[in-house]
Amino acid sequence: MTRLLPSRVSIREVGPRDGLQSEPPIPTEAKIQLVDALSATGVGRIEVTSFVHPKAVPQLADAEQVWAGIQRRPGVRYSALVANRRGAERALDAGCQELAVVVSASETHNRVNVRRSVEESLADIREIVRFVHGRGGQCHVTISTAWGCPYEGDIDPSRVAAIARRVCDDGADGLSLGDTTGMATPRRVWSLVEALRDAVGDVPLNLHFHDTRGTGLANVLAALQVGVTDFDASIGGLGGCPYAPGAAGNIATDELVAMLDDMGIETGVDLAALLAAAERAEQLLGRTLPSRLLRIGPRTRLVPIETAS
Amino acid sequence: MTRLLPSRVSIREVGPRDGLQSEPPIPTEAKIQLVDALSATGVGRIEVTSFVHPKAVPQLADAEQVWAGIQRRPGVRYSALVANRRGAERALDAGCQELAVVVSASETHNRVNVRRSVEESLADIREIVRFVHGRGGQCHVTISTAWGCPYEGDIDPSRVAAIARRVCDDGADGLSLGDTTGMATPRRVWSLVEALRDAVGDVPLNLHFHDTRGTGLANVLAALQVGVTDFDASIGGLGGCPYAPGAAGNIATDELVAMLDDMGIETGVDLAALLAAAERAEQLLGRTLPSRLLRIGPRTRLVPIETAS
Repeated sequence: MTRLLPSRVSIREVGPRDGLQSEPPIPTEAKIQLVDALSATGVGRIEVTSFVHPKAVPQLADAEQVWAGIQRRPGVRYSALVANRRGAERALDAGCQELAVVVSASETHNRVNVRRSVEESLADIREIVRFVHGRGGQCHVTISTAWGCPYEGDIDPSRVAAIARRVCDDGADGLSLGDTTGMATPRRVWSLVEALRDAVGDVPLNLHFHDTRGTGLANVLAALQVGVTDFDASIGGLGGCPYAPGAAGNIATDELVAMLDDMGIETGVDLAALLAAAERAEQLLGRTLPSRLLRIGPRTRLVPIETAS
Repeated sequence: MTRLLPSRVSIREVGPRDGLQSEPPIPTEAKIQLVDALSATGVGRIEVTSFVHPKAVPQLADAEQVWAGIQRRPGVRYSALVANRRGAERALDAGCQELAVVVSASETHNRVNVRRSVEESLADIREIVRFVHGRGGQCHVTISTAWGCPYEGDIDPSRVAAIARRVCDDGADGLSLGDTTGMATPRRVWSLVEALRDAVGDVPLNLHFHDTRGTGLANVLAALQVGVTDFDASIGGLGGCPYAPGAAGNIATDELVAMLDDMGIETGVDLAALLAAAERAEQLLGRTLPSRLLRIGPRTRLVPIETAS
């Protein structure tokens, strides 16, 4: 059982959205260059931006321009996050057909984040899903703080499962569970995935881990062992945590791909191209990214022998 | 099988040795304070220093003074690393009865490190073990670069297993496998532990992971799943990697304990005391340590609600 791992994993690169929304703003052209560098790595999906009110996330106020400016590489799926019906309309008008909306499993986190109760958000989501379907698009739902909330602490898996069932009944095309502040550990991954499967069966499931407390890839391993094959990750670990300055954000795509490569699990991503894209991202941002792998390079990169006797 | 995890894990804190040997030198008194802070955390074992030639590791030239200066807390085992027979003599003379010696699985790495062939090192180790036993001490053997060498690349598990059998035949009281530059991934952990068990059976086995490429805790999870219950870790991730400036070193004790705590696996370590010791270490070193957990705190530390509506 321990070694029964999937042979292939799908990665959604979320750096341009989840990463950049936690960074000081960068020019539109830099964002376009970042997305284009990412689409050259072989990654199958990229979350390009968020169509959200510029006052809420000023870093992504140029969603339409970024969406219009990127190259469309065949074989890559480009998607965007939206916060409400107005955002969905903007995204669809821009030509985006793969959307995601978010609701927190934590009542407090949802109220802090979007100033609505979970119940109000779920009612909104139902309408948004219907609206997106009506215009021929797909709408995935992310349940954030699924493994714990920075305000409330632990979140019961049954609460996440109940929200999942509700949004699936309302037509969600897929689910993502977000570990918003890195509170997941392997046992919690197993128990939540199990609770979710009991509630909604084989709905497409993506897991979105943050490496805020160092357990990011341990959680991926745990998830692989219960058959999850779809993960979010951010180039070089781009992005941070809004609750603690200097804390780490999403798992780094390069670290994820390097581990999976070495375990014989295909991702379709070329690690060398990905590291080049991460270095490009560091240039565009003017700072180093949190990925540890980026500092030393992949395990296949050998050190020249200078002092050998 | 995935969830069949041990109920208890033993941790050897190696920050004062493996961490400090990769750092600019700090005063003897600061080292003593660090060890004393660590022994107050409930950790069962501490590798205090290395009795090695001051020219080889000037950072630890004060091994005798540190060993003599620390408080002996009941229930804590204090140990030291030695490089050769002379070091073993110094350690035993200082009153240290639990020693460890190192050999690389990589011929090149061993030559670069100690200017001897693996065969020469193994012959030395045989004599050192005999000598230590003759004086009533214990001698463990660490096989470094066990999952890969920065000069040679992959290391075949059968090579590590053969060295393990040899040193066990020569009387080693226990083994540690060192992932010197963070080249291990979970599949490699499983295959090497299996090869080792086939070669030497149930010899006490410690694993020493570096988090240089982000897989540290994933490797721990993999090891737990095949019954390993003894790990090295370094306070706050103290230490670095000699092959790449800025690269990460040992797995952070606080991140390891936090993950195991949350998974219901006992370590005997008090996480709050450990975080206090890590903050003390940051003061003593005058810089932040690599642990991600240290930046945000444990998952049980909640954020005050300031902006909730």
